[in-house]
Amino acid sequence: MDRQGILIVVSGFSGAGKGTIMKELLRRYEQYALSISATTRAPREGEKEGREYFFKSREAFEQMIADGELIEYACYVGNYYGTPRAYVEEKLSEGRDVILEIEIQGARRIREQFPDAVLLFVTTKDIDTLRERLDRRGTETKEVILQRLMRAEQESEGMEEYDYLVVNEDLDECVMKIHGIIESEHQRIVRSGELIDRVRKELKRFSKGE
Amino acid sequence: MDRQGILIVVSGFSGAGKGTIMKELLRRYEQYALSISATTRAPREGEKEGREYFFKSREAFEQMIADGELIEYACYVGNYYGTPRAYVEEKLSEGRDVILEIEIQGARRIREQFPDAVLLFVTTKDIDTLRERLDRRGTETKEVILQRLMRAEQESEGMEEYDYLVVNEDLDECVMKIHGIIESEHQRIVRSGELIDRVRKELKRFSKGE
Repeated sequence: MDRQGILIVVSGFSGAGKGTIMKELLRRYEQYALSISATTRAPREGEKEGREYFFKSREAFEQMIADGELIEYACYVGNYYGTPRAYVEEKLSEGRDVILEIEIQGARRIREQFPDAVLLFVTTKDIDTLRERLDRRGTETKEVILQRLMRAEQESEGMEEYDYLVVNEDLDECVMKIHGIIESEHQRIVRSGELIDRVRKELKRFSKGE
Repeated sequence: MDRQGILIVVSGFSGAGKGTIMKELLRRYEQYALSISATTRAPREGEKEGREYFFKSREAFEQMIADGELIEYACYVGNYYGTPRAYVEEKLSEGRDVILEIEIQGARRIREQFPDAVLLFVTTKDIDTLRERLDRRGTETKEVILQRLMRAEQESEGMEEYDYLVVNEDLDECVMKIHGIIESEHQRIVRSGELIDRVRKELKRFSKGE
């Protein structure tokens, strides 16, 4: 591939289906790569270094922060999670479109450092549907579901900071919509500099009668 | 359709295939409407008022300019051509995506008045291909082809003012790319205000435990 990759941020309400969507994007199209996070949380049964996460000690993680090796990071339930810059930049320069699943604070950090990143917010078509999906998981109590909806209310305040709002009603359709958005973004003028230069050079040559 | 239409400007080099592309877009998808220009040029054999053009006297056209009834206009070979505001706004409010085929001066005027318009520039993948297509028309002398290429050189200076650069290598693929761009544009955050408001209202209701 001779085109530069696009950094894609995917955020959205818990229950909107982000995980499944990203898995499908990766399965269907070779052009995507999922960013692998670094974390200080202990590996779980079956998790492999460099596949699910890069596992780090707290000291090593804080050193990465100090050295600017993370493009964003956050702390949840006493553990750090962050996005290693090296992995993302390597994949982008290979022409892969790199997907990050992060929340709004991280999305803002990405935007500062990668102004051309594309920020997607995924939602169900309405909140009844969201609640039904959370209910159907069956693993969560009414209390937890209410917490998630209250969290969603906070998250909804930041929706305007994203570039696109994608409704996940039908998985297949939603995956195609997101792929369509990314393919369209590749055709943006800001990403077409090389082609424009070439066309101009050729036109100059022809109009000189060569 | 409950979504607002998008105003689409299509520009591009002579020979890049704009006309064929637009015909195909209109044939394949009901959502598009072609803007019909007003002109002072005389109707040709077979042309019908309100289908090819709205035919106007010079006085009537200049009155339309004075009354702000044209969103852009230009003068070619002694005749006026312009885009009537009423027709465009009517189609947009019906939810149709309205396509205008105009050049850069017109595109700039559109951008001023419709900041959300989507500006597409169509090109062949290289200038050899462009020249071949102009040659193949068989209707034009070497002189005219050279003039068109010199014109293209001027036009290429404005390419960065467009939103997207679309390469027309294969007609079918190109039509799908443009349709993909427009469908993606419909999902932009700036066009999702209604959905965002609704989602927020519903979340407020749920988090209050209703």
